[in-house]
Amino acid sequence: MVRLAPIAANLPATVPFVGPETLERQAGRPFAARLGANENGFGPSPRAVAAMQAAAGEVWKYADPTSHDLTHALAAHHGVQACNIIVGEGIDALLGLLVRLTVAPGDVVVTSDGAYPTFNFHVAGFGGVLDKVPYRNDAEDPQALLARARQTGAKLVYLANPDNPMGSWHDGTAITAMLDGLAPDALLVLDEAYAEFAPASAIPKIAADDPRVIRMRTFSKAYGMAGARVGCAIGHPDLIAAFDRVRNHFGMNRTSQIGALAALADQDWLAQAVAEVDRARGRIAAIAADNGMTALPSATNFVAVDTGRDGAFARRLVDALATEGVFIRMPGTAPLNRCIRISCAPDPELDILATALPQAIQSITRA
Amino acid sequence: MVRLAPIAANLPATVPFVGPETLERQAGRPFAARLGANENGFGPSPRAVAAMQAAAGEVWKYADPTSHDLTHALAAHHGVQACNIIVGEGIDALLGLLVRLTVAPGDVVVTSDGAYPTFNFHVAGFGGVLDKVPYRNDAEDPQALLARARQTGAKLVYLANPDNPMGSWHDGTAITAMLDGLAPDALLVLDEAYAEFAPASAIPKIAADDPRVIRMRTFSKAYGMAGARVGCAIGHPDLIAAFDRVRNHFGMNRTSQIGALAALADQDWLAQAVAEVDRARGRIAAIAADNGMTALPSATNFVAVDTGRDGAFARRLVDALATEGVFIRMPGTAPLNRCIRISCAPDPELDILATALPQAIQSITRA
Repeated sequence: MVRLAPIAANLPATVPFVGPETLERQAGRPFAARLGANENGFGPSPRAVAAMQAAAGEVWKYADPTSHDLTHALAAHHGVQACNIIVGEGIDALLGLLVRLTVAPGDVVVTSDGAYPTFNFHVAGFGGVLDKVPYRNDAEDPQALLARARQTGAKLVYLANPDNPMGSWHDGTAITAMLDGLAPDALLVLDEAYAEFAPASAIPKIAADDPRVIRMRTFSKAYGMAGARVGCAIGHPDLIAAFDRVRNHFGMNRTSQIGALAALADQDWLAQAVAEVDRARGRIAAIAADNGMTALPSATNFVAVDTGRDGAFARRLVDALATEGVFIRMPGTAPLNRCIRISCAPDPELDILATALPQAIQSITRA
Repeated sequence: MVRLAPIAANLPATVPFVGPETLERQAGRPFAARLGANENGFGPSPRAVAAMQAAAGEVWKYADPTSHDLTHALAAHHGVQACNIIVGEGIDALLGLLVRLTVAPGDVVVTSDGAYPTFNFHVAGFGGVLDKVPYRNDAEDPQALLARARQTGAKLVYLANPDNPMGSWHDGTAITAMLDGLAPDALLVLDEAYAEFAPASAIPKIAADDPRVIRMRTFSKAYGMAGARVGCAIGHPDLIAAFDRVRNHFGMNRTSQIGALAALADQDWLAQAVAEVDRARGRIAAIAADNGMTALPSATNFVAVDTGRDGAFARRLVDALATEGVFIRMPGTAPLNRCIRISCAPDPELDILATALPQAIQSITRA
């Protein structure tokens, strides 16, 4: 039997990512409300749907490996040059490529304890050493991240703003202040997957050519196209160009390129989706309050709801909600894991949540 | 500026993959006939198209990270167990993951000089050392590959059967004979992207649990879904399970999963596409003969046409055909590069080829 290379041989064999479909198969029935993956049930722009449907028959063609049209449209949208943008198969893929480009085995990478696990998966996957800083007041802590990065000589520092899984956010000035303290050979990985849901003040003003930071954006959240796998990184042209050394050049889905281009052009739909998400956040907060729980403020399309109890209780509540047909998730690390994380969705799904949550709580209390 | 990790820092900054869209933008007009990327212009099953169109509005959902339904359908189709199959974003992505799993920096990988460049890109991309064996009679040479692998202690040996870019193929018994000589810790990477076009005798009978080989299949060629990025690897359960250590778990396109499942179920369409491709191979051979050139036998959806001249002539012919609006490619290595490589396509595109080829030849001869 072939031997795995040393890094791969030392990686965990267990899979940290369990999708709702696996849970559905285990339960023998589909979820009635899918509120666990921060998907956007308000859906993609109808223009994007129409464009993808029209392009379906042409899927015998590979996609343009440069994603030229989408790259240029994104550059115009963000007010940067095309050389500042690399399109990829979602932020997850781009994070993997970035780690591969920058992290050698043994290099230190700093993140927050409880932050995005897929980033950690990539760092471990390339032999990097993760160093974690605690959340502070349910938010990532830019100054603590900075201090730890300086102390450890980290190559990368990961910060999501707004944050997943807590939904918290910082003012853009907190990000730029952090940047200003960063060592010259360190890079801030600024994951802005949820940026469209956040107040404008949360988006830091950083020159696209700034070599200290790479920003990540996606069509998976506000644009409602998670299954299409389209994201982009924005950064210094030299770093952006380096992705060409390692990326799967013909890896983009052709239909997704076309759909993302149409979605980007439909900013009215985006604004409407963001407004619907805002309304849904309010409704989730009301449902939480009706059940004696507290929704944390959120600048994302999900709400972290403080159960007022501990991680064991939250885990039982997640499981009880699954039994009631509602898929949600929860943070993995204390004290964040006193919360459950509920994705925004149209009213029919939130109606189901409103009915299921008290039943789930009762089933735990009774047990 | 962040320093790249050593392997990435030493990779070429130039991009080896130029798509037809880049050439079209340079020329300022689209190609009239797209015959260069071994795409299948006979297109995907109408059932796959309909399934993808029906699923377009649901693209706000991530795909099932286990590709459960498609994996099980592929297992049934190939007569293996689900644990023998890993679905991925095309063979290109799966080859990258395989190299990452098995090749440590400095490990030797054996392939043929002129064979699939994307595999070489991945090997170099993870610090592997490529050792190349010449083609023999325009075909990859299993026994020479085997001998070189044994001599160098190679971790991986790559063999495409049928071969790209020559279209040649071996009987399955030549593959199994090669396997029998392989060192116990070496792995044969058997790229069967074009298997559906080949005679049944070309497909070796190898137990799915055989730890000496991993086979690659795709929806990009016979199934006509290159832009959808769906492929699979078939191999020993332990090796297949190892992909979970490094793959992008939520990387599959949801619509593509659904389309591939529908395409797999429509074997009548597949048979028809394979028959159309066979007819197109004959027509390309006739067009070649009309122009004093010789089509090589092919078990793929493309034809290598021997120009009877050298690589410089073939390069000029490829460029002259581009000027005439016809996109083709050519092998990169002598003596294979005396040929041009033309993808099979419906008659309207081959009509354009039939008109353009003599004009292109004349333009070179006149120059």
